[in-house]
Amino acid sequence: MRISELSRESGVPVATIKYYLREGLLPPGASTAVNQASYGDEHLRRLRLIGVLTDVGGLRLRTVARVLEAVDDEGLSTHHMLGVAHHALGPEPTDDADLEPALTDVARLLAARGWQVSDQAPSRRALAHALCTLRRLGRNPDHAVLDRYADAVDQLASKEVPHATATVPRTEAIENLVIGTIVYEAVLIALRRLAQEHHSAQRLAVTTPSSRTGHA
Amino acid sequence: MRISELSRESGVPVATIKYYLREGLLPPGASTAVNQASYGDEHLRRLRLIGVLTDVGGLRLRTVARVLEAVDDEGLSTHHMLGVAHHALGPEPTDDADLEPALTDVARLLAARGWQVSDQAPSRRALAHALCTLRRLGRNPDHAVLDRYADAVDQLASKEVPHATATVPRTEAIENLVIGTIVYEAVLIALRRLAQEHHSAQRLAVTTPSSRTGHA
Repeated sequence: MRISELSRESGVPVATIKYYLREGLLPPGASTAVNQASYGDEHLRRLRLIGVLTDVGGLRLRTVARVLEAVDDEGLSTHHMLGVAHHALGPEPTDDADLEPALTDVARLLAARGWQVSDQAPSRRALAHALCTLRRLGRNPDHAVLDRYADAVDQLASKEVPHATATVPRTEAIENLVIGTIVYEAVLIALRRLAQEHHSAQRLAVTTPSSRTGHA
Repeated sequence: MRISELSRESGVPVATIKYYLREGLLPPGASTAVNQASYGDEHLRRLRLIGVLTDVGGLRLRTVARVLEAVDDEGLSTHHMLGVAHHALGPEPTDDADLEPALTDVARLLAARGWQVSDQAPSRRALAHALCTLRRLGRNPDHAVLDRYADAVDQLASKEVPHATATVPRTEAIENLVIGTIVYEAVLIALRRLAQEHHSAQRLAVTTPSSRTGHA
């Protein structure tokens, strides 16, 4: 198909497609004439993946390029390819003087659970950062709560990850990862807050619904 | 204590304290002389709460003022006071034409679980928004996954909320709520991503640790 058709099919403006071509995010089409090229399904799939990475994953184009490089590197195992994408989803590393001891706590927690996680995983720092915030506010992290959380996500992940990393094409595997991580993260957080509100209502024995701004 | 001492004790600059006084976020101190006032522990506690709401909760001062109003309104039950704070934590409502049917799905899910949640809870919209994103990407929300998530957060919340809303002073109850919602949310998300990476490694049978950028 021509670039105009590729734009129509994908919903991505022609100018953006040309920009992706110039930046090497999208491979060139097959030349059909001077200044004309033909594009195929692989271009549609690639545009869709870029859309998921930027719109859902919130990644900048420079980071998208790094993920696409991993997708195209056939010498890279599916596990390492997914690792590049997973880590690209962030969060960005933060500077915090108290982070080192907290990172040791995190490493200890992972070792106790036998979780096999890269030293570079950004979530190590994210967890350490949260533990620092608790300490800064004068609260010791509640290890019983941490254990319950770890049990819960361990169970959830054991049922989800096989679904995401079954023998599907690499592009699709990355899309599943981004959606499973980012969108289902939003689902989990929203459900958690709804459950909190419900249990707060139960706990405080609210019997009459109210029209006030608070919980009903 | 004098305002300079209040600043030293709280770590909040004098100029900021004066601003809070002008905006009515901090009640005036007891007048001791012309242009001099004395501040007490309740001012320290209030400054600390404002700090938690802005730094941890990420709230703007206008929203902080709304939460403080609820704290000071003794006619408001603890449940409703916490509701004002919980809803203030967001997320902001979004515009989405497809949101209405998704909101109906959310209401159905809540009804099926018997969860008692205010019609105004922002998390209803947050969950509906995530469901819309899935549909936009051509994936139907996986109801088995939603049920597993709901089971997990139901169990977690049933054990945490009593801790947060035991008979503690109102200020402390709000602090517990903000910390429990925001910081432990970060803990949960980080743990989930670590568990995902571990299960991905298990699933893809990664046997030799590697120094590549991906999962090890």
